[in-house]
Amino acid sequence: MTEFNGSDAGPLGVGDGCVQPRDGKQTELTVTFLSEAVRVLTSGCRERSQALQGSANGASSGGGGGDVTGVEGVLRELQFALAEEMALSVAVLRQEEEKAAAAAGSASKPATGGGIQPPQSGAPGGGVDTAGMSAAQIDKIEAKRAAKAAKEAAKRAAKKEKKKAAGLGVGCAELKQRVAPAGAAAAVGADEIAAKIDPFRTGEQAMGPFLCAMAERLSNGGAQRKPKIAKGARDFLPEQMRVREQAFTAIRNVFKRHGAVEIDTPVFELKETLTGKYGEDSKLIYDLADQGGELLALRYDLTVPFARYLALHGVGNIKRFHIAKVYRRDQPNVQLGRFREFYQCDFDIAGNYGLMVPDAEVLSVACEILSALPIGNFQIKLNHRRLLDAILDICGCPPEKFRSICSAIDKLDKMDWAEVRQEMVEEKGLAPDSADKIGGFVNGNAGGAKELWAKLTEEKKFGDHPDAVAAMSELELLFKYLDAMGTLQYVSFDLSLARGLTYYTGLIYECVVVDGGIRVGSIAAGGRYDNLVGMFSASGQTPCVGVSIGIERVLTIMEKRLQEERGDKGAPSNVQVYVASVGPGLLEERMRVGRLLWSNDISAEYSTLDNPKFSKQMNEVLQRGIPFMVILGEKEVQQGVVQLKDMTKHTQEDMRREDVPQALLAAGCTLVTQQAGLS
Amino acid sequence: MTEFNGSDAGPLGVGDGCVQPRDGKQTELTVTFLSEAVRVLTSGCRERSQALQGSANGASSGGGGGDVTGVEGVLRELQFALAEEMALSVAVLRQEEEKAAAAAGSASKPATGGGIQPPQSGAPGGGVDTAGMSAAQIDKIEAKRAAKAAKEAAKRAAKKEKKKAAGLGVGCAELKQRVAPAGAAAAVGADEIAAKIDPFRTGEQAMGPFLCAMAERLSNGGAQRKPKIAKGARDFLPEQMRVREQAFTAIRNVFKRHGAVEIDTPVFELKETLTGKYGEDSKLIYDLADQGGELLALRYDLTVPFARYLALHGVGNIKRFHIAKVYRRDQPNVQLGRFREFYQCDFDIAGNYGLMVPDAEVLSVACEILSALPIGNFQIKLNHRRLLDAILDICGCPPEKFRSICSAIDKLDKMDWAEVRQEMVEEKGLAPDSADKIGGFVNGNAGGAKELWAKLTEEKKFGDHPDAVAAMSELELLFKYLDAMGTLQYVSFDLSLARGLTYYTGLIYECVVVDGGIRVGSIAAGGRYDNLVGMFSASGQTPCVGVSIGIERVLTIMEKRLQEERGDKGAPSNVQVYVASVGPGLLEERMRVGRLLWSNDISAEYSTLDNPKFSKQMNEVLQRGIPFMVILGEKEVQQGVVQLKDMTKHTQEDMRREDVPQALLAAGCTLVTQQAGLS
Repeated sequence: MTEFNGSDAGPLGVGDGCVQPRDGKQTELTVTFLSEAVRVLTSGCRERSQALQGSANGASSGGGGGDVTGVEGVLRELQFALAEEMALSVAVLRQEEEKAAAAAGSASKPATGGGIQPPQSGAPGGGVDTAGMSAAQIDKIEAKRAAKAAKEAAKRAAKKEKKKAAGLGVGCAELKQRVAPAGAAAAVGADEIAAKIDPFRTGEQAMGPFLCAMAERLSNGGAQRKPKIAKGARDFLPEQMRVREQAFTAIRNVFKRHGAVEIDTPVFELKETLTGKYGEDSKLIYDLADQGGELLALRYDLTVPFARYLALHGVGNIKRFHIAKVYRRDQPNVQLGRFREFYQCDFDIAGNYGLMVPDAEVLSVACEILSALPIGNFQIKLNHRRLLDAILDICGCPPEKFRSICSAIDKLDKMDWAEVRQEMVEEKGLAPDSADKIGGFVNGNAGGAKELWAKLTEEKKFGDHPDAVAAMSELELLFKYLDAMGTLQYVSFDLSLARGLTYYTGLIYECVVVDGGIRVGSIAAGGRYDNLVGMFSASGQTPCVGVSIGIERVLTIMEKRLQEERGDKGAPSNVQVYVASVGPGLLEERMRVGRLLWSNDISAEYSTLDNPKFSKQMNEVLQRGIPFMVILGEKEVQQGVVQLKDMTKHTQEDMRREDVPQALLAAGCTLVTQQAGLS
Repeated sequence: MTEFNGSDAGPLGVGDGCVQPRDGKQTELTVTFLSEAVRVLTSGCRERSQALQGSANGASSGGGGGDVTGVEGVLRELQFALAEEMALSVAVLRQEEEKAAAAAGSASKPATGGGIQPPQSGAPGGGVDTAGMSAAQIDKIEAKRAAKAAKEAAKRAAKKEKKKAAGLGVGCAELKQRVAPAGAAAAVGADEIAAKIDPFRTGEQAMGPFLCAMAERLSNGGAQRKPKIAKGARDFLPEQMRVREQAFTAIRNVFKRHGAVEIDTPVFELKETLTGKYGEDSKLIYDLADQGGELLALRYDLTVPFARYLALHGVGNIKRFHIAKVYRRDQPNVQLGRFREFYQCDFDIAGNYGLMVPDAEVLSVACEILSALPIGNFQIKLNHRRLLDAILDICGCPPEKFRSICSAIDKLDKMDWAEVRQEMVEEKGLAPDSADKIGGFVNGNAGGAKELWAKLTEEKKFGDHPDAVAAMSELELLFKYLDAMGTLQYVSFDLSLARGLTYYTGLIYECVVVDGGIRVGSIAAGGRYDNLVGMFSASGQTPCVGVSIGIERVLTIMEKRLQEERGDKGAPSNVQVYVASVGPGLLEERMRVGRLLWSNDISAEYSTLDNPKFSKQMNEVLQRGIPFMVILGEKEVQQGVVQLKDMTKHTQEDMRREDVPQALLAAGCTLVTQQAGLS
């Protein structure tokens, strides 16, 4: 069968096919609304028409979709678009019906006309030994078998037809019934159908509400067979949220140990706030539509909003953290944990401080977090923007090309030098000998921080270029501090690290997971950006340095580990107590006990059925691993007592209802306010 | 002076006026980038030109802004736009200089030519008694005074000029210096300036880098005098985040007690997912720009994404909560706590359950949360969609108008009946007598749940309308359950409650804060929406009911209360220990002690200066109310000991460095992992 437009906007694939009057009542006839419906409908219709390659009669792609004005015009468009669609569908359905009928006929043939064959092992209907049977007996069996086969064939055909109908959209059942009831004349053309669904017909057969209901379903996404989520985005399921909460708590605790305070900023910024800050990556920014008013864009990172925050609120010194989602229109890659919406956990120190003192603390924070999370071995690659600029200057790269050549160098972790060199020379117009000189610096100069520093100094690689001298002296100081903080061991000095973002002015770094010598991917990055705040503030610069932890890959690793640890056991129960009842009519009593537990900070649930069987309630408790049960019966309610069952110790005890919370606590039930960091 | 464009994109208002070569280096000559700069520049220039009403010479509004192709074209555009702007600015500056000079001249006049006047009380320069002085003495004093006055006038004028220059944009100082150095010829026209800033000139006076730097500043938002945040959005400062964390923890705990699990969804959904779900409010949805790909929109609430989630993941039964930001292009109102980005805390129960059982639990959760938060008295107004539709039907409202008439009724909390009736009849075309009948139902029918129910039943208000009968019977059951859960006392049954959203199908409710009988505002709302999931799912409907807590106003109340409680004391310290040193060169030692504390889960900070004075460190500790101090001196370091100071008990003790964490714990220091729910 021809595959129609897979999942998008099939106008007839409406929900369950039953257009209820209530839906019709809820529709409003606005022009915008109907225009959208017509658009969806006609585009869907054209796609189908193309898919059928003109094989169906009555399907012309003319008509709707243009600029339609006025409600009447829109309704007329809708009428004809629906009629066209319907004509197409009716034709296809008829073909399918014919095929199905033919298939059913051929399927029942061997049974009705083929006589009894010797039984074959595994053959359908086989297994009955006919040897020694009378003709009558054989006839009887044969007739039975034929009937069964025919029934099965019909069932298969019906199922197939149902499937086809579903493929076309179940909603067409309703339409079909209205325009071509069972037993109606064979050919139903678009014009004929259109006449039957005139939106302006009144009285008994008024089609207005029906058309509106169709239009609503078409335009509100109900037309799709499978609900969709935006590309590169994802939902977080409860189990993932638990892991996420654990990871965030661990990260927050590191930030808090260092005395950082938390802030939050809006998910969107003025477009101009983000413009010119991200170099070549600016094309990945999500813009909001111009709906009359300001031009906005979704935040691309948390650093630029932080700089804007500092300038707006006139904050001079702050050590802050910010955990929030950022947005990049990058090519998503689920395997690499690359999404278009993802969390960043940022830690930044702003203010005029001792040289390299905040830089050392930021790097230390990054190391503490990565050590606290179960990600295995990691390494911090580190370089200095001024050193990089000095190298470019020494190699004869003109200043206006510094940032674009940096972007090329930044690709050395994904491309080899030959490719990067080609980009520099051919795409970015760098002189070939400059590129070669740059290659001499950025290749093969990576290693232990102090070792490489000493080597570069000894070799006098940078001559007396002032920027290089300044950067190398900053790095010397930094390494001394990192040594004192016990984090120098994680650091690798690497002249090929460039970082694409334009706002960095000093130290830059990137944390990578290293698994058996193989680099798996970057999970944190940052650097110093002393000029960014000044771009927003007339009152001058605020030097800043920070790190951003991108934890999506970390979370993927944690989720897997948790699943492995658990095996078949499933997640631990999220409630402590299940309130069950024996016998009918005790729902309100269960509610009363629930309320008692909730008001005592104890998590509890009861069956949400009016009248659940006790065995079902017990099953739920066992399946979910709920540790306690409170059981109510008619007798217990009259006496004001309940039975408390400890599912772990397999003990049970009758007690007064009001004593239950205390007894639960004594038995080791966890209060909700005590479950820190777990949902 | 003419007020130029207040805060937006003034091309000359560039930061600190000093274009550093480093900025120039960081610029890339891309067409997009420069086009944007030209756009900003020319639009700014035109506004100014209009503001000046053609009074300045050389300012024509012709030139740039059109479609410019190629880097050269863009650079030329930039050159002329800058030149035009500059000519305008130079002219204005010259006017100001002349005015300032004139003012300075008149200010010094009385001093140089006015002779000495008898001293007047309070007069400038007065207070010296000249009686009995020699002429020479008087002359001397006069000369001195004149000099002083002239100096002051010049200072004032300079300040004024500086202010004007700042008004025009400080960056023009740089431009002015390049095109019209001090003492240059008087009139400087646009063409003349353009020639001086030819971007293609090479050699000593090359203007390329300068123009690029200007363009970068203009286009990246650095041009604005005050950083801005999107309308209706806001930052959360650390103090607000603390309150927020407390409130969220309280809310989460209620959700968890009821056994709800947490989920999260993306901030944006496919546009079609949101279309047709929000009735008249759909116009408030934020659309993302069409950047080639899917059409996306920011989530308007958490309910529709939840329905999409259920359909996508095939979830049949779930009790979930979701705390996240939603987006509405509404008119912001800070006083009412209405923002365009705000948090919702949603709790929903999905699945086929006993009639009204989940509904009762959702309402109970809402009551528990509102009771747990310090918001004062609250009330839950409650109604039923089917009852409302029955009323409309009884009053002769045609079905297709049901939702729009509901939207009108929904405004009864902000408008009086006469206005609402007018909207129904004049805007929405309802027959006047239908409107009057509706008025008979929705006015004056609000009150205690069971009382109003009994009254309506007794009066047989709805005849035997089947929807009304069904709804009333559901309400009867609900009230019984709410009674069992102890929450009926908060509920008011109100026939005028309508709720604008189209997706509700059953019970609807809204929680309002009631302060001394006056309704302050709605802080939670929800209802039953049985058909929403089916709009996304081919496998049929999943009945749902839920509530959404909008806590912005709650947070405002909590913030105020916290401030009042605290008075002048300020926020409590966010760190437990301050590591101080006496004498120079101990930074690395402070870092080592910091690391020791952090690795023992203790929050600690040290001065980020290389060589801080002890008194300064002590001041910080006292100001921030940090409870402990670890003090290092040269001698202590040599001996491997430190001094531990308890700031509350005013005690101090010397101890080995490695014993500090244990001693701190013994002294009552809080570990970071123990500070639940507070940042």
